[in-house]
Amino acid sequence: MHSAYLDHAATTPMRAEAIAAMTEQLGQVGNASALHAAGRRVRRVVEESREAIAQALDARPSEIVFTAGGTEADNLAVKGLYWARRAATGATRVLLSAVEHHAVLDCAHWLADHQGAQVELLPVDEHGRVHPDTLRSAIERDPESVAMVSVMWANNEVGTVQPVKVLAAVAHDHGIPFHTDAVQAIGQLPVSFAGSGVDALTLSGHKAGGPMGVGALLLARGIDPVPVMHGGGQERDVRSGTLDAPALAGFAAAVTSAVAEQEEQAKRLTSLRDELIARVRAAVPDVVLNGDPDDRLPGNAHFSFPGCEGDALLMLLDAKGVECSTGSACSAGVAQPSHVLLAMGTGAAAARGSLRFTLGHTSTQADIDRLAEVIAPAVERASRAGLS
Amino acid sequence: MHSAYLDHAATTPMRAEAIAAMTEQLGQVGNASALHAAGRRVRRVVEESREAIAQALDARPSEIVFTAGGTEADNLAVKGLYWARRAATGATRVLLSAVEHHAVLDCAHWLADHQGAQVELLPVDEHGRVHPDTLRSAIERDPESVAMVSVMWANNEVGTVQPVKVLAAVAHDHGIPFHTDAVQAIGQLPVSFAGSGVDALTLSGHKAGGPMGVGALLLARGIDPVPVMHGGGQERDVRSGTLDAPALAGFAAAVTSAVAEQEEQAKRLTSLRDELIARVRAAVPDVVLNGDPDDRLPGNAHFSFPGCEGDALLMLLDAKGVECSTGSACSAGVAQPSHVLLAMGTGAAAARGSLRFTLGHTSTQADIDRLAEVIAPAVERASRAGLS
Repeated sequence: MHSAYLDHAATTPMRAEAIAAMTEQLGQVGNASALHAAGRRVRRVVEESREAIAQALDARPSEIVFTAGGTEADNLAVKGLYWARRAATGATRVLLSAVEHHAVLDCAHWLADHQGAQVELLPVDEHGRVHPDTLRSAIERDPESVAMVSVMWANNEVGTVQPVKVLAAVAHDHGIPFHTDAVQAIGQLPVSFAGSGVDALTLSGHKAGGPMGVGALLLARGIDPVPVMHGGGQERDVRSGTLDAPALAGFAAAVTSAVAEQEEQAKRLTSLRDELIARVRAAVPDVVLNGDPDDRLPGNAHFSFPGCEGDALLMLLDAKGVECSTGSACSAGVAQPSHVLLAMGTGAAAARGSLRFTLGHTSTQADIDRLAEVIAPAVERASRAGLS
Repeated sequence: MHSAYLDHAATTPMRAEAIAAMTEQLGQVGNASALHAAGRRVRRVVEESREAIAQALDARPSEIVFTAGGTEADNLAVKGLYWARRAATGATRVLLSAVEHHAVLDCAHWLADHQGAQVELLPVDEHGRVHPDTLRSAIERDPESVAMVSVMWANNEVGTVQPVKVLAAVAHDHGIPFHTDAVQAIGQLPVSFAGSGVDALTLSGHKAGGPMGVGALLLARGIDPVPVMHGGGQERDVRSGTLDAPALAGFAAAVTSAVAEQEEQAKRLTSLRDELIARVRAAVPDVVLNGDPDDRLPGNAHFSFPGCEGDALLMLLDAKGVECSTGSACSAGVAQPSHVLLAMGTGAAAARGSLRFTLGHTSTQADIDRLAEVIAPAVERASRAGLS
């Protein structure tokens, strides 16, 4: 049975060049903070990785702060910028899109519960997009009180691409720092840190074909978040902890390849993804495609299957060799309807009956064929289960 | 030229079995939070790693929270326990030994500067040890106000082993949670989480022959720190972020081997280390051994070389193939005298003239021979440089 991995947004296989770059370092010894020859060698690996990532994303090497992943980068951005701005200006409002990843949302809610923040969720349209006027009017109710804004580059569930450059400019009209989680965008969309105008940008290794356990926060000059990790003072005192040189080498190799191949992959994945959508629609005529029909991640297809429970459908597809995701946060086995879909105006039942299929660099025509072959009977069976 | 790596306390080479366990996973795909077959396979890797580490350290699997390393585990312990206790009881005093690692110290100072904590550094004796009576009297000045206590298992600079079990019992007499950073102890000393009685214990992968970028905080039942990383709710909502299954597999393999070989390695390293001390003393008669002469890490030798600058001596030794550390925090090239040595009563000049030599699982007789061969001329040259 051909197994179709259609969950690249959760994690994508490591690229061969990333595995090679990483494993080459695993057998070497040295702490990048050490002054001796072994330490200096490792420091070179770290700095070459930094330069490669900077070059791929149109950033300066000095703008990169390495972290242990996207979650840590989001925590540093949201908490760190909030604390820094509050200390400097007294501002306490945190403006986020209602469709942010939990790594952004949950930081903000914690700041509201324990650190004096007021969190405001910016509403989105039915495709999950934040309109610049929405942000502008939220700011203009009281510009001085806004500590920071965070809107993701592209949504991890429904794939909708946000007008990040315009949104950042709106924030900048009032001197407010703007953060974007670009974890899903790397390798799928062109990403220029300098060109986007954002002040802080989150990256993750394993969503770009690199290793898990590594990521980065890009920080424009003059943007100095309060640290979330205190300690040895690595990464210019913004983020402490021994630099994971092997993972950084793999991360750099992955980002370099993903960005170099982005245009070609975007074309290839858009074509595969459009066929996936067409064939699912043909097999299940009442299916609803969620997210922006046009301006979405090339690898993303997200559907609601009326009358189905997403979890049940997921397991039925899994049994047939198709691996996908409900795209909703599951905690201790309790499936909650996705906050992203609810924010887009989807009803709770439709939200619970949704599945995300995401393609990446290893996706092939055979994956689409497999899904097309098994989706109709699986939906039929899941619908019967839902009715019983 | 034989190169003698004598900086195992900074990072130790990965064990072959850890590299093998990790690289086996790098080519696999799956997010441990995903529900499909690939996700479940990765979840098994994570849970088997958790069970192996728990078994090696006499803990329950449910007591392990995986982190991105020792620094993150210390941040979670110090900030998380402080916030949790303050919320529950109003207590705001944080008691630390004066010789803690910066990952503990700097968290506490940040809590003092920004989160309402009062930090008290427990004085140490001339060997760097915290006496139980010191902790007891600090607590008894006002037991209700103490949020938490943190004293490391063994010091990373001078190697002194702390009476952690007795100290934890003193804290428990007043119902105060006790954290210990045991990063340096794994593989060198017997470590039983249950036997120690501590409430929270920090581990690091790369100090035990595992990969960088991974660690853990062991948490006794009922100890619930406030998270430092918010997001997807992994690790029972105590620590969010995608679980790094390949690194965890390597971490588990390393800890399992390190603990299995601990007794034998401790004997071997003690013997090598004692020879190292004897030969350095013979070559440099006025050298001073720092730390406890007896109750110290088997792999640690820490000296002050009167009349030398540690940095200069380090570079001279490096040029002769001996890699060691000043053991002091270096920030942007500015060498500051070690807070550990200053707390032990060492003068600033002697502190600046200190070097740490640390042995580990790959250390051999040839490393000691090499150091013994080059130390006297290097010290002589560094002394001349110091006088000029």
